[in-house]
Amino acid sequence: MIERKTAGKEADTPLSSGEAKEMRAVVLTGFGGLNKVRLSRRNMPEPQDGEAKIRVKACGLNFLDLMVRQGTIENPPKPPLVPGFECSGIIESLGENTEGFEIGDRVIALVNYNAWAEVVCTPVDFVYKMPGEMTFPEAAAFSLNFAAAYMMLFEIASLREGMSVLVHSAGGGVGQAVAQLCSTVPDVTVFGIASSFKHAAIRDTVSHLFDRNVDYVQEVRKISPEGVDIVLDCLCGENTSKGLGLLKPLGTYILYGASNFVTGETKSFFSFAKSWWQVEKVNPIKLYEENKVIAGFSLLNLLFKQGRCSHVKTVMEKLLLLYKQKKIKPLVDSLWALEEVKEAMQRIHDRGNIGKLILDVEKSPTPLMANDSTETSEAGEEEEEPEGDNDNKERMPFIQ
Amino acid sequence: MIERKTAGKEADTPLSSGEAKEMRAVVLTGFGGLNKVRLSRRNMPEPQDGEAKIRVKACGLNFLDLMVRQGTIENPPKPPLVPGFECSGIIESLGENTEGFEIGDRVIALVNYNAWAEVVCTPVDFVYKMPGEMTFPEAAAFSLNFAAAYMMLFEIASLREGMSVLVHSAGGGVGQAVAQLCSTVPDVTVFGIASSFKHAAIRDTVSHLFDRNVDYVQEVRKISPEGVDIVLDCLCGENTSKGLGLLKPLGTYILYGASNFVTGETKSFFSFAKSWWQVEKVNPIKLYEENKVIAGFSLLNLLFKQGRCSHVKTVMEKLLLLYKQKKIKPLVDSLWALEEVKEAMQRIHDRGNIGKLILDVEKSPTPLMANDSTETSEAGEEEEEPEGDNDNKERMPFIQ
Repeated sequence: MIERKTAGKEADTPLSSGEAKEMRAVVLTGFGGLNKVRLSRRNMPEPQDGEAKIRVKACGLNFLDLMVRQGTIENPPKPPLVPGFECSGIIESLGENTEGFEIGDRVIALVNYNAWAEVVCTPVDFVYKMPGEMTFPEAAAFSLNFAAAYMMLFEIASLREGMSVLVHSAGGGVGQAVAQLCSTVPDVTVFGIASSFKHAAIRDTVSHLFDRNVDYVQEVRKISPEGVDIVLDCLCGENTSKGLGLLKPLGTYILYGASNFVTGETKSFFSFAKSWWQVEKVNPIKLYEENKVIAGFSLLNLLFKQGRCSHVKTVMEKLLLLYKQKKIKPLVDSLWALEEVKEAMQRIHDRGNIGKLILDVEKSPTPLMANDSTETSEAGEEEEEPEGDNDNKERMPFIQ
Repeated sequence: MIERKTAGKEADTPLSSGEAKEMRAVVLTGFGGLNKVRLSRRNMPEPQDGEAKIRVKACGLNFLDLMVRQGTIENPPKPPLVPGFECSGIIESLGENTEGFEIGDRVIALVNYNAWAEVVCTPVDFVYKMPGEMTFPEAAAFSLNFAAAYMMLFEIASLREGMSVLVHSAGGGVGQAVAQLCSTVPDVTVFGIASSFKHAAIRDTVSHLFDRNVDYVQEVRKISPEGVDIVLDCLCGENTSKGLGLLKPLGTYILYGASNFVTGETKSFFSFAKSWWQVEKVNPIKLYEENKVIAGFSLLNLLFKQGRCSHVKTVMEKLLLLYKQKKIKPLVDSLWALEEVKEAMQRIHDRGNIGKLILDVEKSPTPLMANDSTETSEAGEEEEEPEGDNDNKERMPFIQ
């Protein structure tokens, strides 16, 4: 065992990258717009006690990464930083106290930043072995979305036969994970909300699909006058009180994101404040009278601030079993080279994706897009780009 | 079937009370103190479509009944009214559409008021058959407390092996039901809060017991620095924010009562307002950051306002099975004649009880207590009795 680890740390195994002292990584030079995102060279990390060093193959891109870029999150770390919370790859070396893992293991890893790089080190508490039949893009699309969906549905809300679920952003990574997990329980009705252009692609994954511009409260009431048992809300703002209002008695509303806080390319204090104040505070006595449950769920806080990695590991084991049983399968929207990270971010900002956006570390950039993204400067720039939603879904490369 | 019902409605079966047109009942003549409570004669009710007419043997007395008396509840009905939400007894006759029940069945019944009487009619949706070995006082102590405890622990909070639970009023009916249900799950830690004089009696039912006057937040933190998984709060007021603060990540706080709103014998608007404003409203974004769940639970609202009787019936079936398996057994504090209802109310007000207070319809009043309670006047009296907690636990008859 010791020998294996020593060998790993010296990086002289067949899988190692030899003596490379640097790696490529996506770097956020400061909070702001797309111009704060660069592809740069960074020092090669080495695994500490309890850590695995992973040669990254694919990284997951989440809406939260936009909020990190804008600085719209709670206590963000100080830039420059490498974004990214999840990846898949191959273990290249191991620190001490990493029993159960071997060099060469194909793994999924959750990291507290730093995933968007060629190499990442993270404690093995946050590393899970990939099933043999799982691809690296699938693996990078798997962990955060399915773990969040599973814990919300089964641990917070106790999804049971015959219940109904409303999910916003039904076409996104979590939305599709929710739809698939709901299909493992008999007779669950899923109300999904998504942009109309996604409806053809995801219609079969949910029971009822509404456009994101309609009054979904009214539409749900038409079908189910009593409301729903579970509301999963990644938008926040006024959707919180709408979601609570839609709950049946004993129903559960779960807030797991605040994508409504992101309006333009950069943080808009006005929009932020407006969304913040739209979030109605809840009187516990009202919950008592109405028999309702309200919850918040942040998987990253749970893992990296609240130390619940061993619990999440048991969840991941259940999910990987469901994957092996072919009951769930992550939906990958598109693969992007590291050089294309800005375009990928714009695509998720525009809600253009159906399923998960993946940075494929070994992919070459699409020639059309490569000209403006391969910068290596780390100098911070303070200028802000003009704000506003560019309706540019059509010019984005769409690979899978 | 039809014949059976017709016979029942005519009340000429061996179990019927013959041609009695009146019955005794506890009547609340107006909202206020103990002087608003009378033993009176009321018209004999007859079962409507879907209802059973029950010859009541025992009634449960809950803290909520004090709040009804004071008018401290949401939308109380207009007095005069007969209080009481639960009883046990024998079916004396049946309306149409009451399949599954027979005259002579020993039953537990939940009612939307009117339980504290010799006879009550209620839809059979709220009636459950008693196991043969269950006594009438046990049956009257069973339904509300165990159903509430079960639904909070297993349906809202998903109690699992290894978790911890904090329960206020651990010596009360719900508190003891919570303790017993927790003992059916391996390795659950129960933190109970109760007046010191109850500790000897209930020490074995919980893992850790604190006096209600100590700083329980500090005491729990000494034993479990991380806090607890589930907080069950029947007090409200400042305990809401204390309970939320004590939760571990993914923990659930459930508000199921507001006994802190009751201070003196009559409603005190000052105390009420103070408790109300002490209930901190909850920001959903804070729940998101902290991974917490807050819920409200009112079994009576669920049953009588929100139409969830069939769901509660499935819960009762599970609980009655646990009773038959001798895994749970309601704890009866004391039995009281209808004439002694004021003393019983005072006892629960003073938190003198350990387990459930029962009105035993066939019991004769304790001679000492009978002199001031057997009034039959229904005239409302407007004078208020002086407010204040009388420390008169010692003069209460304590039967079981």
